[in-house]
Amino acid sequence: MKTKILILGAGLVGRPMALDLVNDISFDVDVADISEAQLKNIGDDRVQKIQADLSNETDLKTMVVPYDLILNAVPGSIGFNTLKWCIEAGKDVVDIAFYPEDPLELSELAKAKNVRVICDIGVAPGMSNMLTGYAAHQLDHVSKVDIYVGGLPKVRTKPWEYKAVFSPADVIEEYTRPARLVEHSNIVTKPALTEIELLEFENVGTLEAFNSDGLRSLMFTIEADQMREKTLRYPGYAEKIKLLKNNGFFNSKVIDVSGKQVSPLEMTSKLLFDQWKLQSGEVDITVMRIVIEGQKDGELLRFQYDLYDEYDPETGIHSMARTTGYTATMAIRLLNKGLYTTTGITVPEFLGKEKKVVDFMLDGLIKRGIIYKSSVNKLV
Amino acid sequence: MKTKILILGAGLVGRPMALDLVNDISFDVDVADISEAQLKNIGDDRVQKIQADLSNETDLKTMVVPYDLILNAVPGSIGFNTLKWCIEAGKDVVDIAFYPEDPLELSELAKAKNVRVICDIGVAPGMSNMLTGYAAHQLDHVSKVDIYVGGLPKVRTKPWEYKAVFSPADVIEEYTRPARLVEHSNIVTKPALTEIELLEFENVGTLEAFNSDGLRSLMFTIEADQMREKTLRYPGYAEKIKLLKNNGFFNSKVIDVSGKQVSPLEMTSKLLFDQWKLQSGEVDITVMRIVIEGQKDGELLRFQYDLYDEYDPETGIHSMARTTGYTATMAIRLLNKGLYTTTGITVPEFLGKEKKVVDFMLDGLIKRGIIYKSSVNKLV
Repeated sequence: MKTKILILGAGLVGRPMALDLVNDISFDVDVADISEAQLKNIGDDRVQKIQADLSNETDLKTMVVPYDLILNAVPGSIGFNTLKWCIEAGKDVVDIAFYPEDPLELSELAKAKNVRVICDIGVAPGMSNMLTGYAAHQLDHVSKVDIYVGGLPKVRTKPWEYKAVFSPADVIEEYTRPARLVEHSNIVTKPALTEIELLEFENVGTLEAFNSDGLRSLMFTIEADQMREKTLRYPGYAEKIKLLKNNGFFNSKVIDVSGKQVSPLEMTSKLLFDQWKLQSGEVDITVMRIVIEGQKDGELLRFQYDLYDEYDPETGIHSMARTTGYTATMAIRLLNKGLYTTTGITVPEFLGKEKKVVDFMLDGLIKRGIIYKSSVNKLV
Repeated sequence: MKTKILILGAGLVGRPMALDLVNDISFDVDVADISEAQLKNIGDDRVQKIQADLSNETDLKTMVVPYDLILNAVPGSIGFNTLKWCIEAGKDVVDIAFYPEDPLELSELAKAKNVRVICDIGVAPGMSNMLTGYAAHQLDHVSKVDIYVGGLPKVRTKPWEYKAVFSPADVIEEYTRPARLVEHSNIVTKPALTEIELLEFENVGTLEAFNSDGLRSLMFTIEADQMREKTLRYPGYAEKIKLLKNNGFFNSKVIDVSGKQVSPLEMTSKLLFDQWKLQSGEVDITVMRIVIEGQKDGELLRFQYDLYDEYDPETGIHSMARTTGYTATMAIRLLNKGLYTTTGITVPEFLGKEKKVVDFMLDGLIKRGIIYKSSVNKLV
């Protein structure tokens, strides 16, 4: 008897997740989306496509009834609601909708409904949280957590040397939202794009890293003296972005331009759309480094994880979709095999407490060509 | 019997010109402008202020009747017409309206009316043309003319390190209008902001120079193998400007921004207005270098002229207004003293043919603290 899985959202990540799961004999896979074109784009007749408005509570709750597991991959704007409705419908959920709300607010509800929910289980947030949680769990005291992550085009074209699968507006939002980090065990806020540093990475060379607001639940779930997440770009990028930001081109507040009320942010997004759009077939890479330092039995240890992943030319799947999607599909298998049984809301750092869970996730990703190089060193 | 002078336009340059001329006992000075505030701003009761719409042909032609000399300092948008009307009214004119039209089109009219008109007689165009004309006149063959000029703030503030007395739209127009220059004795066109080079200047240090479209009449009146004009800025400026230009922020063509038809150029001008506005009392400088090389009796000679001028804290007059305005008021004296008698349209390079005229202009500017350091060297 196969496990029935419903993927909510047939977007860029939804497709590779559907294909990965349908190739597993233990699963029946259906995908729901409001866009017929997106559903069509999935191909593979083994996957049943359902056209539906996922922002409609009644329709959604009715639709999910026959399924054993739900994979929530809708846009962030509606993601928190779809998750909440799935929980109310009593379904186990793996969630990569990355909405602005805090999923832990649903903990009581999820426990009461006796369902298992794994949230934010992509690459970052996701693997970054899980591996930080794993290392922190080995330590008596965590002194420092540094997470560096970026999605980049392999071919560097001036002036931006940057392409994204997201809309410019979403990218720009990451440059305007203040970055929260931990200093001296307290959460502090700094402007995005600050504290630019240069770092070396295998296969890539020198990249620049700057403050961004990507710690999410880690700020609240892991005790550390210092913790920060930085975005990676090719060197010189932040200065160009700050030129636009500091001159008001990212302001959302409308201004009067010869009688017309216009938001500079909207115009800038429009102008940069073609510049920044990662085209289908264009090779993207994902680079991530996670460094966790702390005390264990009086010794100072450093855990480090390095990820380098590339676009897959055979399947035409972007690295961003691979690293996010396959993490989520491994979480589906985790629940399906009963390897993780805790009910309520689970953020990935909680998974890190169980070595067999971490190994299961890392092994599954290795089978899909996504390799986290890890090391543990004693610091004198 | 005093010479009656009418200055058309009470703008930034109009005021210092009025004050310079009214301090000369040989002149009666009136100023006309549509703006009462601008007229008030001139102060000095010896100057009679006339509020009038200078874009009205009949009014203007009636107004100029009682005057001996007219100084045309209106905005470029109406400057060609006001000049034409003054000529038709039979008046000698000194003209710094810097309109897009070609003043030499009025040559026949001016000759027929038997009037003397000196056009484009500011700093650049203006002194740059006159000194190039002077040097070219000494040579049998001109091999190269390089004109480097820029108005800059003395205090360098990132990211732009630039301030202007002009509106951002006018400044940006200089970065979008293709630059015409002479190569191998032919006029060729290159994009503005190209061929960036670094040069050293006394009192300032290193500046960058890039192609701009500032040769005006010189392209047609002086025969040279190579001739170009470049704009001077603090190093790094052109790259920042190109970031905006190459990403469409200077496009005047309207685009649809959530239903509103807006020109990116208009929005950019609006956003940069405060960033670029030279405030009253803010110290500006003018830097210019003119290099003319060529053959004379089988020898290769290089003429070089260097100008460095600063804001005058005593009078509160900006360097841009000093270097432009006092050149024009010296041209008024040139006509008034009968030192230049040629009728028709005179562009400044024509003045360069007469050493006594060049000396008169340079001496007058020296008396006003505007010093062109000159040198002639033999190249082996």
